[in-house]
Amino acid sequence: MGHTMKRLVILGSTGSVGVNTLDVVARFPERFRVVALAARGDVTRMERQARRFRPQVVALADEKAAANLSRKISPLGIEVLAGPQGIIDVARQAADMVVSAIVGGAGLAPTWAAIQSGRAIALANKETLVMAGALMMAAARKQGAPILPVDSEHSGLFQVMAGTRRAEVSRVILTASGGPLIDFSAAMRRQVTPKQALAHPTWKMGPKISIDSATLMNKGLEVIEARWLFDLAPEQIDVVIHRQSIIHAMVEFVDRSTVAQMALPDMRVPISYALFHPERAPMALPSLRLEKMKPLTFEPCRRQAFPLLEAAYATLAAGGTAPAVLNGANEEAVGAFLAGRIGFTKMQTVVRKTLDAHPTRELTTIDDALDADAWARETARRLMATSSSRQPRSSPTSSRVIRPASF
Amino acid sequence: MGHTMKRLVILGSTGSVGVNTLDVVARFPERFRVVALAARGDVTRMERQARRFRPQVVALADEKAAANLSRKISPLGIEVLAGPQGIIDVARQAADMVVSAIVGGAGLAPTWAAIQSGRAIALANKETLVMAGALMMAAARKQGAPILPVDSEHSGLFQVMAGTRRAEVSRVILTASGGPLIDFSAAMRRQVTPKQALAHPTWKMGPKISIDSATLMNKGLEVIEARWLFDLAPEQIDVVIHRQSIIHAMVEFVDRSTVAQMALPDMRVPISYALFHPERAPMALPSLRLEKMKPLTFEPCRRQAFPLLEAAYATLAAGGTAPAVLNGANEEAVGAFLAGRIGFTKMQTVVRKTLDAHPTRELTTIDDALDADAWARETARRLMATSSSRQPRSSPTSSRVIRPASF
Repeated sequence: MGHTMKRLVILGSTGSVGVNTLDVVARFPERFRVVALAARGDVTRMERQARRFRPQVVALADEKAAANLSRKISPLGIEVLAGPQGIIDVARQAADMVVSAIVGGAGLAPTWAAIQSGRAIALANKETLVMAGALMMAAARKQGAPILPVDSEHSGLFQVMAGTRRAEVSRVILTASGGPLIDFSAAMRRQVTPKQALAHPTWKMGPKISIDSATLMNKGLEVIEARWLFDLAPEQIDVVIHRQSIIHAMVEFVDRSTVAQMALPDMRVPISYALFHPERAPMALPSLRLEKMKPLTFEPCRRQAFPLLEAAYATLAAGGTAPAVLNGANEEAVGAFLAGRIGFTKMQTVVRKTLDAHPTRELTTIDDALDADAWARETARRLMATSSSRQPRSSPTSSRVIRPASF
Repeated sequence: MGHTMKRLVILGSTGSVGVNTLDVVARFPERFRVVALAARGDVTRMERQARRFRPQVVALADEKAAANLSRKISPLGIEVLAGPQGIIDVARQAADMVVSAIVGGAGLAPTWAAIQSGRAIALANKETLVMAGALMMAAARKQGAPILPVDSEHSGLFQVMAGTRRAEVSRVILTASGGPLIDFSAAMRRQVTPKQALAHPTWKMGPKISIDSATLMNKGLEVIEARWLFDLAPEQIDVVIHRQSIIHAMVEFVDRSTVAQMALPDMRVPISYALFHPERAPMALPSLRLEKMKPLTFEPCRRQAFPLLEAAYATLAAGGTAPAVLNGANEEAVGAFLAGRIGFTKMQTVVRKTLDAHPTRELTTIDDALDADAWARETARRLMATSSSRQPRSSPTSSRVIRPASF
């Protein structure tokens, strides 16, 4: 195979996955050219990345930050775009691959734009598939735009399932470290501070995903993501607690052979797999030496003990707009928890009440997903603003009232 | 894929792998037709297999046993062949796949005959590759006869490496349970009885391979087998002690991603993989549930503590006839240990002294391997017959003296 130069767009370049992606890119200057970067509003980091990688265009969603950045890097001749539309313009840049690493529902529209432009997607933004998996996968198939997972669990599944027949897979197992609170009692959970919940035992990640790991919402989002990426029935997707985060995912085949992917917890491994696909590139990282490590343990994951994981399976069963509502409500709840406005266990209450108030609708366009997301956020915010004993307003009305302009 | 009927020849049908192969075959009567069976001399079991599977021809290496069998099943209209040539004739039967499951060096000639006849080989007889790996692989390539490993470790490697690029593999790891004596001191090892050494902790296997598992000679033979099957350099093949025998083998890729194959210890899993290749068939066997099991442990395998494993690596480095000599001497030593004629640690002494006395020669024909095997057996027997302090006669002379007629 010839060593072609891949042109990359990185959405969310200043976040954890974005930074790790640029670390991989920097190791292979002859293989990648960064053509565009986008982020929310971190001017300092974006300026550094722009100076280092010299993209043709950068975008910041925060317009003030974009203006600020523009002043700082104007001598470089790099175009600076601003606002959500700027991010979408970046997603549509001519490129060979778009790394979709914006955190949360904000990643949906730019990822959709990249897929519609026929770009290969390295997907770290799981919310895209949670909110609109069926539409995304159909559009990607139609455009011939491969979606390569960057999440370590899904990268593991992808690596194992490459070249196998879908009908020969009996089930997949996603592992979960269990997060920092796995051994906390229900009483202890009610007292958890953001600092405690952010202290992930095995992975160093951004705050949103760290909180989701503590509630196991992250695993729930991954279950939904796996359902769409690999066209699995929900009952084919199991979760097992594996505290060491060495085995990331397993595939059990119909002949009772199980194939597992493992690696030291380092996002550069799944990132490089997606970037180089279908090749593998030598990564100068430590070798996994199981014989020098503690035993690998596995425990059942009792879904009842993790209401947000249970809710994720429930929204898969409900289908339609339900997963988008789950995700939107959860993002609002996580934001409120991180800001100290609600307690740890209140997050699951907010999400449950929002879902209870939502009559699931069919998902026929991306706007349906964005509407459901907006309704869920509004409802969750209202639930958090009022006393927790108050019920949310009935859904159909509020849904119509807050329906945003078409995207 | 259409469900074609595969015609099977099973060499070594009355042994552990043979019986498990017929168990798999019996589950899929519409997929397999047994055209021929061969074994050493178990008349009772062969009669039962012949009545059940109705092959066209059967063979027993023991001529008396063959005559006995012939009398018993004459009404069935099944041809009964006798002696080593009978086994080879069975190996050449018209068939889609030959399962090579004869134990030890006796499997070499029939497997060679099957490869020369262009048959796909399901290979359980690792000695074939140990004794003449380069020749076997070259002949298989020339004949377009795929070699599908049945050994659980090699099946694991094969499953993981299918569809990957050889240059992207940095190393492979074979796991070893360590056998029943792993925690024995050197002093305790000298007192080990055959019964103790046969008590394998995780696998139920025949006596020869059970003893080889106790000395780790089996792992040494597997290292050599892996070297040929997957075209690996010896330093790319590592062994790790994994007492639970759940992970059978692992492949570390250059990007530091490791993919492992696992299954409950049941030979029907790798056997079915080889039989159905390139498909996987649903096997009604228990599912692997790591969350209900003890932790998976891994320990370094100190080669110095296992002289026969160390010797296997040494013969790979020496090349030529050295691995065949290792294997022949070991078979004689294991036979003597099982018969109570020598002690447990004497096995390694016999093998080492035989190797020390052998000037490695090039391996250009199968006869070279058979000659080296015969010389090794003769030398090992003489070493065991005389006082252990006596030295063997010098090799070149004896090699010429006992050189058998060309095969």
